[in-house]
Amino acid sequence: MPADHAAHPITGVRVTPVAFRDKPLLNTVGAHEPFALRSIVEVVTADGTAGLGESYGDLPHLRRLERAAELLVGVDIFDLNAMMRAVVASLTADDGVGGHGMGGMVMNSSAADRVLSPFEVAALDVQGKLIGVPVSELLGGAVRDRVDYSAYLFYKWAGHPGEAEDEWGAALDPAGLVTQARRIIDDYGFSAIKLKGGVRPPEEEIEAIRALRAAFPDHPLRLDPNTAWTVPTSIKVGTELADILEYLEDPTKGIDHMAAVAREVPMPLATNMAVVSFEHLPPAVAQDAVQVVLSDHHFWGGLRRSQTLGTICATWGMGLSMHSNSHLGISLAAMTHLAAATPTLDYACDTHWPWKDPEDDVVVPGSLVFSDGAVTVPTAPGLGIELDPDRLARLHEQYLHCGLRERDDTGYMRRFEPDFDPSAERW
Amino acid sequence: MPADHAAHPITGVRVTPVAFRDKPLLNTVGAHEPFALRSIVEVVTADGTAGLGESYGDLPHLRRLERAAELLVGVDIFDLNAMMRAVVASLTADDGVGGHGMGGMVMNSSAADRVLSPFEVAALDVQGKLIGVPVSELLGGAVRDRVDYSAYLFYKWAGHPGEAEDEWGAALDPAGLVTQARRIIDDYGFSAIKLKGGVRPPEEEIEAIRALRAAFPDHPLRLDPNTAWTVPTSIKVGTELADILEYLEDPTKGIDHMAAVAREVPMPLATNMAVVSFEHLPPAVAQDAVQVVLSDHHFWGGLRRSQTLGTICATWGMGLSMHSNSHLGISLAAMTHLAAATPTLDYACDTHWPWKDPEDDVVVPGSLVFSDGAVTVPTAPGLGIELDPDRLARLHEQYLHCGLRERDDTGYMRRFEPDFDPSAERW
Ligand SMILES: [Mg+2]
Ligand SMILES: [Mg+2]
Repeated sequence: MPADHAAHPITGVRVTPVAFRDKPLLNTVGAHEPFALRSIVEVVTADGTAGLGESYGDLPHLRRLERAAELLVGVDIFDLNAMMRAVVASLTADDGVGGHGMGGMVMNSSAADRVLSPFEVAALDVQGKLIGVPVSELLGGAVRDRVDYSAYLFYKWAGHPGEAEDEWGAALDPAGLVTQARRIIDDYGFSAIKLKGGVRPPEEEIEAIRALRAAFPDHPLRLDPNTAWTVPTSIKVGTELADILEYLEDPTKGIDHMAAVAREVPMPLATNMAVVSFEHLPPAVAQDAVQVVLSDHHFWGGLRRSQTLGTICATWGMGLSMHSNSHLGISLAAMTHLAAATPTLDYACDTHWPWKDPEDDVVVPGSLVFSDGAVTVPTAPGLGIELDPDRLARLHEQYLHCGLRERDDTGYMRRFEPDFDPSAERW
Repeated sequence: MPADHAAHPITGVRVTPVAFRDKPLLNTVGAHEPFALRSIVEVVTADGTAGLGESYGDLPHLRRLERAAELLVGVDIFDLNAMMRAVVASLTADDGVGGHGMGGMVMNSSAADRVLSPFEVAALDVQGKLIGVPVSELLGGAVRDRVDYSAYLFYKWAGHPGEAEDEWGAALDPAGLVTQARRIIDDYGFSAIKLKGGVRPPEEEIEAIRALRAAFPDHPLRLDPNTAWTVPTSIKVGTELADILEYLEDPTKGIDHMAAVAREVPMPLATNMAVVSFEHLPPAVAQDAVQVVLSDHHFWGGLRRSQTLGTICATWGMGLSMHSNSHLGISLAAMTHLAAATPTLDYACDTHWPWKDPEDDVVVPGSLVFSDGAVTVPTAPGLGIELDPDRLARLHEQYLHCGLRERDDTGYMRRFEPDFDPSAERW
């Protein structure tokens, strides 16, 4: 509909880059830098109702959000189709370079879906406030009051080089990971465990999984090497870890290689790298390349499109889990509402939440509480969270001063290991 | 969420069977009886807001709607997941017999989706009224102000046997169909033509299509024999009508046979019989059995699930069109909002609207107007229509007195042609 028919037109959009302190978490492309970058989206409609969204903070992505923001003024807050058209229009002259938001690990998600996402979440936040219902209700109704998250373990250094050891200390071997797991489970009550792999040679990571199984005999275990392995290595690891892993996540690169592994290993293969947009579903389904898709509303175009992904997974007999990047409270709220309202999402979701400094956020504390490994679904209208302007200002100041403008795990690692090789399928 | 947390609980549901006068339209399983049956659903929430839905009127379906209605009281009007759970619960002791709503032509749609549909539409009608936006806006925003429908041609008798000739007269050969087409296009302005086939031997229907092409050189043409043909006949007809048909609809029965035809004919195959629920999509896609799916919110579980079907079709490169049964104004409004808000629905939709007596409806006249073959999308809150209690009462009286309780095109035909054979693939 023409924007001048809008009953609840968007009158203002603000995009604010922020940085929050992060830990030296290791992955197959490098190490997390001292700060993680995010963009905070605020959308306001004519009647003064405001909504929140959160996305990646990489500069090319930030510029895309700003260009889209200009075209969104005047669009009705319920008109998601018009929002998508505005986003697509804002991308017409885009060079497509950078801003993928995943440190180089995922380069083929849809730019339109990535850009739409925080605005769609903010629109749903406004819609919920206008109507007086939580976002989970807009998404069809919460099927659970609490959303389970998983313990997300990382190999990590004791602290950032040149800084003091952080409160988590080092985890560079099976014993260190078991210690990390004990602490994170003691603190949060998680009932499932995921290990970020692709960091140490596969044999060491197999030993780490075995150590975790011995220490936590009842926790489902997942291993995610982010495509660090060849097809034969993936098959070897998958075979050795039969009956131990709940699923094996992205052992190798691309749909064809995933399919080759899936044919030979006993456990489901999960992905947030081989299937990251709707166009990847047909070839993946045709080859039965993946058995679990990790949804992520930040690159699947927001909450409603993520729910459509869920129905597709259910239709084709694929499982549905949820992926996480380093994130703040707005994303945690959005992930929680989405998971709550998605009947077929029955794996514990990923979250980087424990690795964030509790002081670093942009929302008023208290609305998102972990207990027994789960977050209680907010029942206040919209996302059920509130922006804290002082905290936002502090994290924006941190952004201005941290010097980082694009996530670069590899560059950071190479400052300490100049010969570091981030190649996929290198083992 | 527990129903006692509902902010907008359903406090009342009424299901009213109605009958409206129908024409003796012929299809492959028989003839339309003098009355078509529908059920009208009214849902009211605690604040007194009312919403409307419409579905099949077959008695077994009516009973299912009534059983579901009891369990829907207390459910929040936004909680579509809870509505689906209530529907599923209402079906636990169901024998699954009858009530498929399609005169025996489609027997494998999902009972839960059929039953949910009118309640979901009524819920969206209420939601739209509560918020003050049209249903198209709830569905993501209208991408068009007007929805194109097609001229739906039928072989027909001059009138119901024993009654006077109706205003349309007979159409039993190519000349009769061209005359019918001229009138329906003069009256409504349709710019696409669909012929309901499977009535006369295939060679005669090919001649009818050729006559329509000669008379209407610029109108896209479709032919739908409702699975009356074998695979070889379907291939023969499809080959002869190359470059004439926009699509060929359900020439033969089942996904395997459709796939065998699709491999050999030049035009897309469309279906509202081989793929009628989500579970049929994987096998159809695997064989590339159909290239266009005719959505129908009455058996795909309502408007939101029909939109998900649309995204699936777009993802797998299938076209999307829309199927129709004999229907009243509530369904026309729902179909129009759905089509308006579905970017990928770009075929003119089917409708039986012209075959209904204009006096027979349950909504206040004037909100749904055809011009140049299209219906202008209502912009009032909700569906943008209003129930007329007097008209509803009259059509319910008509139901009580017409004696029909389940659509039976074959039984009606056999009263006049005792040896009539309704078999699929009989040519
Ligand atoms: Mg992953
Ligand atoms: Mg059909």
